Amino acid sequence: MNSVLTDPEYGVTRLDGLPSRITICEVGPRDGLQNEAAVLPVAVKAEFVERLADAGHTLVETTSFVHPKWVPQLADAEQLLETFKPTDGVRYPVLVPNQRGLERALALGVRDIAVFASATESFARRNLNRSVDESLAMFAPVVARARDEGLGVRAYVSMAFGDPWEGEVPIAQVVDVARRLTALGVTELSLGDTIGVGTPGRVVAVLDALTGADIPIESLAVHFHDTYGQALANTLAALRRGVTIVDASAGGLGGCPYARSATGNLATEDLLWQLRGLGIETGVDLNKLVETSVWMAGKLGRPSPSRTVTALAGEATE
Amino acid sequence: MNSVLTDPEYGVTRLDGLPSRITICEVGPRDGLQNEAAVLPVAVKAEFVERLADAGHTLVETTSFVHPKWVPQLADAEQLLETFKPTDGVRYPVLVPNQRGLERALALGVRDIAVFASATESFARRNLNRSVDESLAMFAPVVARARDEGLGVRAYVSMAFGDPWEGEVPIAQVVDVARRLTALGVTELSLGDTIGVGTPGRVVAVLDALTGADIPIESLAVHFHDTYGQALANTLAALRRGVTIVDASAGGLGGCPYARSATGNLATEDLLWQLRGLGIETGVDLNKLVETSVWMAGKLGRPSPSRTVTALAGEATE
Repeated sequence: MNSVLTDPEYGVTRLDGLPSRITICEVGPRDGLQNEAAVLPVAVKAEFVERLADAGHTLVETTSFVHPKWVPQLADAEQLLETFKPTDGVRYPVLVPNQRGLERALALGVRDIAVFASATESFARRNLNRSVDESLAMFAPVVARARDEGLGVRAYVSMAFGDPWEGEVPIAQVVDVARRLTALGVTELSLGDTIGVGTPGRVVAVLDALTGADIPIESLAVHFHDTYGQALANTLAALRRGVTIVDASAGGLGGCPYARSATGNLATEDLLWQLRGLGIETGVDLNKLVETSVWMAGKLGRPSPSRTVTALAGEATE
Repeated sequence: MNSVLTDPEYGVTRLDGLPSRITICEVGPRDGLQNEAAVLPVAVKAEFVERLADAGHTLVETTSFVHPKWVPQLADAEQLLETFKPTDGVRYPVLVPNQRGLERALALGVRDIAVFASATESFARRNLNRSVDESLAMFAPVVARARDEGLGVRAYVSMAFGDPWEGEVPIAQVVDVARRLTALGVTELSLGDTIGVGTPGRVVAVLDALTGADIPIESLAVHFHDTYGQALANTLAALRRGVTIVDASAGGLGGCPYARSATGNLATEDLLWQLRGLGIETGVDLNKLVETSVWMAGKLGRPSPSRTVTALAGEATE
């Protein structure tokens, strides 16, 4: 594959008010793959995780201990954790739905977990089969035990901008769930636009409300879906507000089976193209990531929806 | 088709420092269709132009008088101009490459034209078959005569951010071409990221250099391609700098046959989704535009690359 980034060279032009370095939380192996109908062999998933770390990722959400009935693709979570070769200095969070999942994760030496909360009752009922209150009550002992064990705990606040059943989600609701998760002891909150309807003004308003409620900006990640093409513009707005953790999925893999039109996550490559041009460091090699996404597209039998992958992979075959 | 915008309602959250209203220059019929291999009947094009105006567009680039040898799709320019029913208050600029083109346009009652310049020598040679100096010399009498006739004259400055042969384009070069076009008498400059490589820092730097050279921000339009998924984030950066004219193509139609990887224009629907959420008025009805793009996709035999069209059209068929 050509090194299209150095031939020709498009240079760097910084923009005031942006961080000089951010961390990408690569969610391809979990959030990306979980909605793929074709179940991949564990060896392919292990290679995927290894390639992501080799490309320079330092935070790779690897799999989930959600019941296989709900996410058949990730039924091999334990096998995967025993198969892939971890890289020093890379964190591999695993989604755990409950205490049983946490115990399985701990037994396998997992050092970072994630829990999946909802800002809306409708989605909590549909995705977690319980109310927001009930789901937070379920997470409380999980987070407490994880923190006792010294684990990092990321919490997703899904439907933080809009909900397909409720429409626009009141910011007070997002703040309430975020505060309660913080009180439980989570170390990072990822604000999910699960259906991709948010726009930059809403992103800024939600972030301002959260920091106004004494939730530190350093603990906030953003998680955008590109359903309406808004993910990268929303990310830019969040970066301008001081966010330094951005979730993205290699090749734009992903979606959500429980919400209509929740197509792919922000593609890590599209994000990297923007960050590269802005001179914002991530440590991730775009060319290696494009190679990985092209390889994964081959395994899945369909092209990556990422514009940058399409552009660079297309050039590489000219 | 469902009215997906009102069911559910995602609301408006404004962002400081943005205009309250902008004008979209809809380039679908010209920049969008010109690269489609399958030549559409003139009646379909006329309906396309009429539907765009009916959706609320007030500026629709309709066709081009470039030689049919170069753009066979637009060989029916005169026929189209005689066929479609114009709407009062809507401007229908037509691209003219030279004086002969201008005379044909004037004979048909055209009131707005566009000329297509390049910020780089490489692209001027490949696209216009002459140097930058020679192309500006060619445009001089065209612009002068058009202005004498009271026409509006838009000038594209293509490759204003990056060039596939030259890489990053020096800002001084963009400013030089923009100043010379302004001196010729053009009324509007559209800054083209023809291959979609630009990022928001570069956009701001180019805009600042142009306004620093006394080119009024009101006369500047931005024209982004979504080749690397950057178009909407770049547009947001431009809006924050005071730009109020944004080029976009219904359904994301378009590309450039003379530059590798120059895929689609910014989709008007993706832009409208963002503007709607930000409370920025355009007068364009998103649902009507989605219907038009779905209809056009049927004529072209392939789905729209617009994320918003995909999301809304998908919902409409549920």
